[in-house]
This record gives sequence, C-alpha cells and structure tokens, in this order.
Amino acid sequence: MAVGAKAGQERDRDAVARVLEHLRARFGERLQTGHAVREQHGHTTTYIPTQAPDGVFFPESIAEVQEAVRLCAEHRVPVIPFGAGSSLEGHVNAPAGGLCLDMGRMNRVLAVRQEDLDCTVEPGITREELNHHLRDTGLFFPIDPGANASLGGMAATRASGTNAVRYGTMRENVLSLTAVMADGRVVRTARRARKSSAGYDLTRLLVGSEGTLGVICELTLRLHGIPQAISGGICPFPSVEAACQAVIATIQMGIPVARMELVNALGMQAINRYSGLGYPDSPCLFLEFHGTEASVAEQAEMFGEIAEEFSGGPFNWAREAEARQRLWKARHDFYWAGFTLRPGTKGLATDVCVPISRLAECIVETEADIAETGLVAPIVGHVGDGNFHVTVLMDMDDSEEVARAERFVGRLNRRALAMEGTCTGEHGIGQGKMRYLEEEHGTAGVDMMRAIKKALDPLNIMNPGKIIDPASG
Amino acid sequence: MAVGAKAGQERDRDAVARVLEHLRARFGERLQTGHAVREQHGHTTTYIPTQAPDGVFFPESIAEVQEAVRLCAEHRVPVIPFGAGSSLEGHVNAPAGGLCLDMGRMNRVLAVRQEDLDCTVEPGITREELNHHLRDTGLFFPIDPGANASLGGMAATRASGTNAVRYGTMRENVLSLTAVMADGRVVRTARRARKSSAGYDLTRLLVGSEGTLGVICELTLRLHGIPQAISGGICPFPSVEAACQAVIATIQMGIPVARMELVNALGMQAINRYSGLGYPDSPCLFLEFHGTEASVAEQAEMFGEIAEEFSGGPFNWAREAEARQRLWKARHDFYWAGFTLRPGTKGLATDVCVPISRLAECIVETEADIAETGLVAPIVGHVGDGNFHVTVLMDMDDSEEVARAERFVGRLNRRALAMEGTCTGEHGIGQGKMRYLEEEHGTAGVDMMRAIKKALDPLNIMNPGKIIDPASG
Repeated sequence: MAVGAKAGQERDRDAVARVLEHLRARFGERLQTGHAVREQHGHTTTYIPTQAPDGVFFPESIAEVQEAVRLCAEHRVPVIPFGAGSSLEGHVNAPAGGLCLDMGRMNRVLAVRQEDLDCTVEPGITREELNHHLRDTGLFFPIDPGANASLGGMAATRASGTNAVRYGTMRENVLSLTAVMADGRVVRTARRARKSSAGYDLTRLLVGSEGTLGVICELTLRLHGIPQAISGGICPFPSVEAACQAVIATIQMGIPVARMELVNALGMQAINRYSGLGYPDSPCLFLEFHGTEASVAEQAEMFGEIAEEFSGGPFNWAREAEARQRLWKARHDFYWAGFTLRPGTKGLATDVCVPISRLAECIVETEADIAETGLVAPIVGHVGDGNFHVTVLMDMDDSEEVARAERFVGRLNRRALAMEGTCTGEHGIGQGKMRYLEEEHGTAGVDMMRAIKKALDPLNIMNPGKIIDPASG
Repeated sequence: MAVGAKAGQERDRDAVARVLEHLRARFGERLQTGHAVREQHGHTTTYIPTQAPDGVFFPESIAEVQEAVRLCAEHRVPVIPFGAGSSLEGHVNAPAGGLCLDMGRMNRVLAVRQEDLDCTVEPGITREELNHHLRDTGLFFPIDPGANASLGGMAATRASGTNAVRYGTMRENVLSLTAVMADGRVVRTARRARKSSAGYDLTRLLVGSEGTLGVICELTLRLHGIPQAISGGICPFPSVEAACQAVIATIQMGIPVARMELVNALGMQAINRYSGLGYPDSPCLFLEFHGTEASVAEQAEMFGEIAEEFSGGPFNWAREAEARQRLWKARHDFYWAGFTLRPGTKGLATDVCVPISRLAECIVETEADIAETGLVAPIVGHVGDGNFHVTVLMDMDDSEEVARAERFVGRLNRRALAMEGTCTGEHGIGQGKMRYLEEEHGTAGVDMMRAIKKALDPLNIMNPGKIIDPASG
C-alpha cells in the first residue's frame, strides 16, 4: 500500500518531538509513546498494514482536546482521532505520523432526556455501554454496526448496520455534534430540536467526515422506544434473486421491517458450522419485526406470504427472546464463522451498496467473480438498504492471492458504481477506498469536498491521508 | 428592513446590462425584464418588502443554467434561484439586484423507479404535480409543507410539514441532487444507493442551503408506499399542556403516527368560523395514522387511551376518506382561516422548533406574550417534531403595530433558542432570520458556514444577502 507513504517521508521529526514533549510535561502518563500502544492505535481490522502514530494522547475534556489540536496546528503535526479501533478502511492509520487522540476516557453519558427521546454522550462510549446505561429507561439506541464501536467513531464513519432499514443510519440519528475544529475552536453544530432549517447542515457535514474536519467531542443522539414486542426468524430461499425479490416486495408493501439480512449459501455453510445450527445451506433472510404484539404477528405473517410467493420458506418465526437471540447471535458471529471456511486466514471485509432493484444482479455477479477468481468469500447483506459485505478470507503470506483479492475488490466497487451504487454503504473511505471516490463523485464532486477540506483545515492536520488528498486535483 | 440595502447600492448597472443583453440575444422571450414579472419574482408571502431582480430567465436545461451562472460569474452579477415563490423569509428577494432563475420550465419527472421506491425530477415540479404523476404507482412523496411548493425550493429550504414526524423532512428524503455550482460546474452529490459512507455529505450540505451555494437542477427523491389504510380524527384537550403531554406519550409508546398537528384555541376559533365546523374552541390535535387496516385501528385506539389519560377527548376517528379529507382541508386552510379573525390584514408567518419536552411551555409563554403585546396571532404546530407556527395578523399601514410584531418575533426566536430549540424548524433563514443565526450557532458555527460559503462561492454571486453575509465576521 502506497497510501500516504509520500506524506510519511515528509514528516517533521522535530515538530513531533516538540508536541510530544509539551504533552508529556502537561499530562504525564496520559501521553503514551511506547511501541505496543502506538502499534495498537494504528491497528485496523483490515489487511491494510499498520501505520502507527508517534504518540497517543488520552484527553479527558474538550479543553484538553482543544489544547492538543492547537499544539498540533502550531507545529503542523497530524491529529488522528481514535474511538474503538473497529473501523475497516485504515481510518486510524497515521501515514504521516502524528498524534493519535484516543477518546476512550471521554466516555460519559452526559444527559438522558426521556421525554425528548434523546441523550448527550461523550465520543468514547460504545454502543453497548450506552444501551446498558439506558436499560431502565424503556429507550434504546438502535444503530448496530456489528462491532462494539464507539459512538464518536460511528458518527465519524456514518455507520449503520442491521437496524438501519427501520431506524436509519448515524446520519439520521445524530441530532447535534460538538467538535474541536482544526483551528482549535469548538463548534456545536445544532441545538436539540428534532429538525431545523437554520443554515448549512454542519451536523451532516461532520457525520461521515472521518476525523478529517474536526474531532467529535460530544454527540446528541436520537433514542427510540424499546418495542413492546419483537418477532423474528430465518427464511431460506432457492436463490439470491428470489430472496431479493421478497425484500423488494416487503418494502413496497410498507412492512416496517426492523432487520432484514441476507446471508448467501457459502455464508450459511459457515454459520451452520460455527454456530452448530441446522439451517439449509441455501441463501437465507434473517428477519426481525418491531411493534405491538398484534403488529409483529401481522408483519411476520405478511412476510411469510411474500416469501412463499417467491418460492421461499418455510418462514418459522418466534416471539420468544431466547430463540431470537440465538438467531441474531449466529448472524453477528458471521465474521468469525467465516474463518471456519479457511482457518488461519485474515478477513478482508469490504462493503458496497446499490439500489435494491440491482441487488440480486450485483450479488450474483459478485459470487461468479469470487468463483472465477478462486477466492473464498462469504457474503452477508443489510439488504433492505441494498448494502452487502464480502469477507475475503486471504492467506496474507501469499502475495499473489492478496493482489488477486485487491483486484477483486476493485471490480466489486466498479460493479456497484456501474449500478448507480456507492463504493461503501457504511464502512467509509479511509485509506482503502480513496481510489474509488472520484469514480463515484466525479472530479467536480471531489473538488467540492477538497474545497471544503481546505477551507476548514487549511494546514491539512486533521487525519491526513484519508478520504481525499487536498493537495492533488 | 435594512437587509441587503448596502449590497443593493453597490450593484454594477453595466455588468447587469451586459448579462441581460447576452441572455436576450441567446434566448429572446425567455428573458423577461418587465416590471410586473420582476416584482412577482421578488414577491414573498411574508411582510418583508419586495426587492425585485433586474431580470428573470427561464432555463430549460442544465446546460442553460450553467451558461447563465457562468455569465453571471464573469460579470459578478447575483443569481437568485426561484421555485414556486412560496418561501416565507425573503429567500427570493434580490437585495443586490441580479438575475432570477425561474426553474418553472424545468418541471419534468425524469424517472420513477418503483422497485427502488425513488424518482428523479427536475426542480420546478411541485409536490402536487409529482404526486399526481405517481397516482398509478402505489407510491407517493410524503413531504407536505402546506403550500404547493416546488421540489427544488423545498430541498433548498429543507422543508418538511405535517408528515415529517413519520416520513422525515427533505433532509431524509433527498437521495441525491444535481446542482450547478457558482463556477458553473455540475456536481451530482450522490448515487442512488439508500445510504453511503463515501466522503462528505454533499447532498445534506446543499439541502437547506437556500440557493447560496448552487442551483439545484435535478433531485432524486425517496418515495413511500401509499398505506393500505389510513385513519384519523380530531381530539380536543383542556389545555396546550395536556395536548403536549399526550404527544410525548404517543411518541414514547412508539405509535408510528403519520401526522400530529396542534391548533390552539384561537386557531380552532378561526378554523371553525372559516370551514363551518363545530369543534370546540379549545386546543385540538389533528391526527392521522398509516398502516394496515388492523394497525391503523390499533394506533387510533391506543392514542384514544392516551388522550383520555391527559383529560383529552372524545377522540372520534374515521377510516373513511371523505371525513379525513374534510378534516385535513380544515387544517390546511389554517392560514386563510386566520384572516377571518382580522379581515384586511397581512399574515406574518414565522416558525420555531424546540425539544418536545419544552413545547407546552414555549407555546403557553408565546400565547401570553401575544396577549400582552396586543396582537392577533393563532398558533398551529407540527407538534410531533416540536415545531410550531405563529401567524401574526398585522395591519401593514400601522407601522407601530408592525414594529411591535417584529419585536414579538424576536422574543419568540430567543425563547425557542433558550429552550435548546432552533429559530426555524422548516421555513429557513432567508433574509428574515439572519439576525438569529449567530445566536443559534455561535460565532464559531457561523464562521464555519462562512468558510464553506467563501470556499464554494468566492465571488458571492449565489443568492447573496441570505443566510449569512460572507464579508462580515
């Protein structure tokens, strides 16, 4: 990977030393420069090689983030915000070195407002911690990207996951952000009103900006009432096409499905093996319905009829928590289940998203491509949104295979773009997908992003080498 | 109103003449410079005085918009995009003169994709025209700001209205925009995928930008399935507080209400008089539920129980289209009904939005303020979102009364801001609310908007004098 290598060579060692010296004098142990800590903070869950920062600072307040960012601005040293480290496209790598801000100590719930169905949290709290905190309120935060990611990181990458078809993504569920911008000023992007027409949408500009415009320090999030009842189940289909037709019909009927996940035949094989389940090795939809007792029964029955129409089924659904939890545990273990197909490999997890009318075609072509390329790569999809993931199980010691996998990912992205889709539905651009951004947005679109980046971070210190290179173009 | 007066004095008559001359030579009658047409295009539905443009051009293609924008850029002449002219804060005024682009001839439906539940339209089509076009598809576009606004204008002002509590605002329902930017380049902000994490959210940056960053030339919109069944009705409450408590309980219960509108006692008096209805002159909620036959009955019954808990009711609801249409006709006639309270006056329509926990307090304080100020001003609210409107019925010949009304609007905005709300939930900033923007976003927030404006429109030709003044600050 050549990403950021040039910038890396240019790093100013003296400037970095001055920043680290200042922070150590001010904060002692809260600045870490040991090899292991630095490597861990450059670590990503993809195959992209680690590029460690020069130091890791653990701020405990907005004022400390401001101090660190101002110091870095003064010395032209990169600032790399770090949440839980579960991002997938090299977002937390430090190709030009610099200071990692590990937001993990800023993990408090600052307010829960039950009447307004919202809360304000610090960025380091994870979604599981937040939902644990909310357990007695009757409310929950629905966005579930699989990993137990931090809320700050989820906002930064515009994360979504299994519930997005009903509850939306981070785009829809962040009411307001407080961020330290590249010049050290604090911006609060919006008040707590559910909607506003007051000026440019600064909230949505920062959601998905991957730390390249500012450091998210507080989030005000929409919460949702825990549904009175939940039903769910697994439904097998004879083909990916049949499953996708059922998905389209379900959405057209207006069934307010909460989760609708497709696992392809290879993926079901892995899940069955890993979780000791006895489902058929054919494409399956995992479904969940939220509502009143009457409504979740009605929704499940309506879906069952649709499935039958497209030769799917039987659709066995249940309202009991235990049965549903077993089902979703199996779905969430998909990533780990994959390795049973090829132990000892590393998973390259990539995602694209297309209009749902093109989803079956896109998955079927991708399955054929995987077979032709000689890769082992199960597929799972948040199909209600047209979003799917491919996990390529690679032998990292076989450079020819890695190169083959990379070329496959290139074809996958271009296939999605050719179908009016996007090169990433929820993982983000990071380093790994920078090459596809211009193909997706055109030169004019990327130039517009570049103009915004230059206007808000003229020194290019905020997470440089991610999304766009402001110097090119 | 001093808004834009300074810029107006600076206008370069020769530059304007050159632009108009060029366009007349190229397009003949599609450039209009007559007094009546110009006045009509500076006309707004508020009390803000008309500031007419120097000419009105009716483009018929993106290429023609590009040509006009490039010409205006070359001569430093303002460009003011115009949809249906139903905006409320002086958005289409031309304080520094310039060229109005009336998008009314670009009003085609370019594609309807039933499987994807989306469509692509030109900006001049109105929401009623779009829904008429969709009538045989089983789909509809839900955003209904009251006026038969153009879709381009609705995106530009981040419009919403009665259905937003269930279906979201323009923010959630625009998938992608094609816009001509200030330098004449065409940007398509996104593909058609339901979600994407690919780079900065250019779509949401343009939604709500009020023509100050670019001219919207195409919109790809989310559509929704027409619900199988609809139920609805009116429910009286003893007080605004009781009605708001019922609203909060309804949302906390997760009832997926489609519309939930509050009309205060004075508003009900006007509606009863105007529409010949016999409802009590006490605060009422207008409700609508969408879903299956079983679900809309269940939702209405659940709401009825909640209403009773807060001393409201009786809640008489119906599934018959005729009864519901009469009800919503009465609600939609609210603006006109107001004038029965004080014939011969002009309505100053303003809106704010607060967290719903503060809504009752905000409305009650506002009612007291109206009484103390000696104004006649009914209130209606999209209360599921915490958004409400006040229509001040003013004698425009009484300058003292107009000044009193303006001071009242100032207090209303500051009241909403003090309750963590916004100075506009759906009307936008335009000219009328520029003074409140910095109070809402702080200097750092407005400076961030200013930096974006300067980066994307360095000559300040795109709808100048609206939202922010890039030269100040």
